[in-house]
Amino acid sequence: MMKSENAYDQYGASSQKQDVFEAIKILSRGISDTTFCNLFRSPFDKQLISLHADGAGTKSALAYVYYKETGDIKVWENLAVDAIVMNTDDMLCVGITGPFYLTNIIGRNKNLINLEVISAIIRGFQNFSEKMAEYDINLILTGGETADIGDLTKTLTIDVVAASFISENDYIDNKNIKAGDVIIGFESTGQALWEDHPNSGIGSNGLTLARHTLLKNIYKNKYPESYDYNTEEKLIYNGSFLLTDTSPIDSLDMGKYLLSPTKTYLPIVKEVFKYYKKDIHGLIHCTGGGQLKVKRFVNNLRIVKNNLFNVPQLFRLIQTSTNLDWKQMYEIFNMGHRLEMYISPELAKEIIIISEKYNVKAQIIGYVETADNTEIVIESDKNIYVYS
Amino acid sequence: MMKSENAYDQYGASSQKQDVFEAIKILSRGISDTTFCNLFRSPFDKQLISLHADGAGTKSALAYVYYKETGDIKVWENLAVDAIVMNTDDMLCVGITGPFYLTNIIGRNKNLINLEVISAIIRGFQNFSEKMAEYDINLILTGGETADIGDLTKTLTIDVVAASFISENDYIDNKNIKAGDVIIGFESTGQALWEDHPNSGIGSNGLTLARHTLLKNIYKNKYPESYDYNTEEKLIYNGSFLLTDTSPIDSLDMGKYLLSPTKTYLPIVKEVFKYYKKDIHGLIHCTGGGQLKVKRFVNNLRIVKNNLFNVPQLFRLIQTSTNLDWKQMYEIFNMGHRLEMYISPELAKEIIIISEKYNVKAQIIGYVETADNTEIVIESDKNIYVYS
Repeated sequence: MMKSENAYDQYGASSQKQDVFEAIKILSRGISDTTFCNLFRSPFDKQLISLHADGAGTKSALAYVYYKETGDIKVWENLAVDAIVMNTDDMLCVGITGPFYLTNIIGRNKNLINLEVISAIIRGFQNFSEKMAEYDINLILTGGETADIGDLTKTLTIDVVAASFISENDYIDNKNIKAGDVIIGFESTGQALWEDHPNSGIGSNGLTLARHTLLKNIYKNKYPESYDYNTEEKLIYNGSFLLTDTSPIDSLDMGKYLLSPTKTYLPIVKEVFKYYKKDIHGLIHCTGGGQLKVKRFVNNLRIVKNNLFNVPQLFRLIQTSTNLDWKQMYEIFNMGHRLEMYISPELAKEIIIISEKYNVKAQIIGYVETADNTEIVIESDKNIYVYS
Repeated sequence: MMKSENAYDQYGASSQKQDVFEAIKILSRGISDTTFCNLFRSPFDKQLISLHADGAGTKSALAYVYYKETGDIKVWENLAVDAIVMNTDDMLCVGITGPFYLTNIIGRNKNLINLEVISAIIRGFQNFSEKMAEYDINLILTGGETADIGDLTKTLTIDVVAASFISENDYIDNKNIKAGDVIIGFESTGQALWEDHPNSGIGSNGLTLARHTLLKNIYKNKYPESYDYNTEEKLIYNGSFLLTDTSPIDSLDMGKYLLSPTKTYLPIVKEVFKYYKKDIHGLIHCTGGGQLKVKRFVNNLRIVKNNLFNVPQLFRLIQTSTNLDWKQMYEIFNMGHRLEMYISPELAKEIIIISEKYNVKAQIIGYVETADNTEIVIESDKNIYVYS
């Protein structure tokens, strides 16, 4: 079994990024320390500006290997969706549903990444923007920067920055999460109305670990440009799958299963906001940090998650391959829902109905109670895990 | 002599990035095709939003090697300045002087880049923001994302996105550049009031070429993580300098000379705008593409640059090391001024006086005349180069 304290660290990745938080703590968090994203006063009366940066992370290393193996250009279009949604769905958690002004930063190794790939990414931005327009979500592509930096980038990185606005009396602050709230989880798997295929549920987090522990060693010598040479050799591509093996989802091979584009919850939450925005006490996007993400926003509350979705097949495969503690799995992966809403019990039913209209399952996955210390309790079918 | 058509391409870098322009041409350029940055209508009446992405590029690979050699943490603070100024001084060219809302994207190899480095970068953002506040320039740090992506990033990448606003009747559009204009150049070397040291003038462009052709081969085996393995072996670190050798500037060794933080022109141009904003026909930030940058904004005009600054020592060193055509040098490097302003001759003197108050030399470096085709003419002391 991998050691809990460094299973993820061994790959030079981290779920909690303590040292980064340490480095940035001198910076202002804007108008509140407990909003999910930072909000700043804009030059416009009563308006706040939100500027948000995130990207597809190491999912692009997987897209690269898959593209080289299969020639399927579509994976690059999908990666554009990952880079957008990692931003928009964070901003959703402060109550923003657009218009989103988007810019992209692509760093490429020009010796390996050609025009066709860059064009596919740009097409992906545009297609997703058109798709979301059908749901009254306005994604405005404002440009970007593609830098040829082979001395720094092995293959390709893709990040997006989104800017948007919200009025001073309309934003959501997680400081309102309170005892008595229930937690509604929105599934990360399944196939929402706007998705072309069922989703493995992985989003854009934990991909370094997933890729190396699931995929076969054959890719190690074939694609040395797809991993960090500082990684311990035995950890590199030590799994049992080929990218072209069948996956638990019929229409997807293992590669496309792992590359499922991050599912957005924008259309659902935009409709929920229409009726219940003032009633929402907190919204958490469970990305890096997985099911513990809420922890940094609450004080003297116990967050009990006792009715989670069944653990998706993909996370079970990863657990089997890594033999990671289940307790740690919940710290790294979303484990079934990537968005959670904190709200009074009596409103849960209507919100779940709205979500299901879009073919995204939602359910009450837990509740909030007072406690002497802040803690997260996860009651799975295997065990009870307490994080304090 | 390196072949003109691929001297830069051999390093997987490019000054003109034709294929990137090809890939993004399907995207909207906002309200005008000839503004230096894209401007989009914001949700605020009569306001335009500008969202801009850029970064320090491969200058971080140089900072990494220098830091490893000398332990001097200060180079990372300086790199934060590069990442900011590459954005703000582009946005300056559409008439924006802030407030600038800034976010950063740092991609790091956690095995090589520790907390101390990230902290220095964040400190650099903050120090520069405080320094600029003295000149009434408002840089608002809104947060950012530090991603641990060793499978993609050899050492560290640092990018910034800036957002700002300008009213619909107040922006600068390069379509107003016209025959009869003179061109004022603002030096990239020297030591402006806000700079701690004299500047080599390099900015954040052409660093891949400069680094490999100036620095000694000793760094090749010592820092394999600082270059692209796809680069032809004989091109890697094939120069004659150590980072700790003396440079043409007394107070700087070669490393710090090459790492001179990109000089901002914000305080100068903000004062110029106070009196002459409506008179400015065009503003060009001479970054990637060097002295040819103006070309894509004009039609049927000949841009004659016949009184350029003396070529800074650094660019002469690079030319000697690379034996590049001088003609090509002007396409890659700024060659002495990184900002140029297009304006009627009678206003030039006053603008030059304003610049010199801040200890930045400015001079009329050329003029604009009508022509059947668009061309740039550079009359150096060596030769006349025509780019059409």
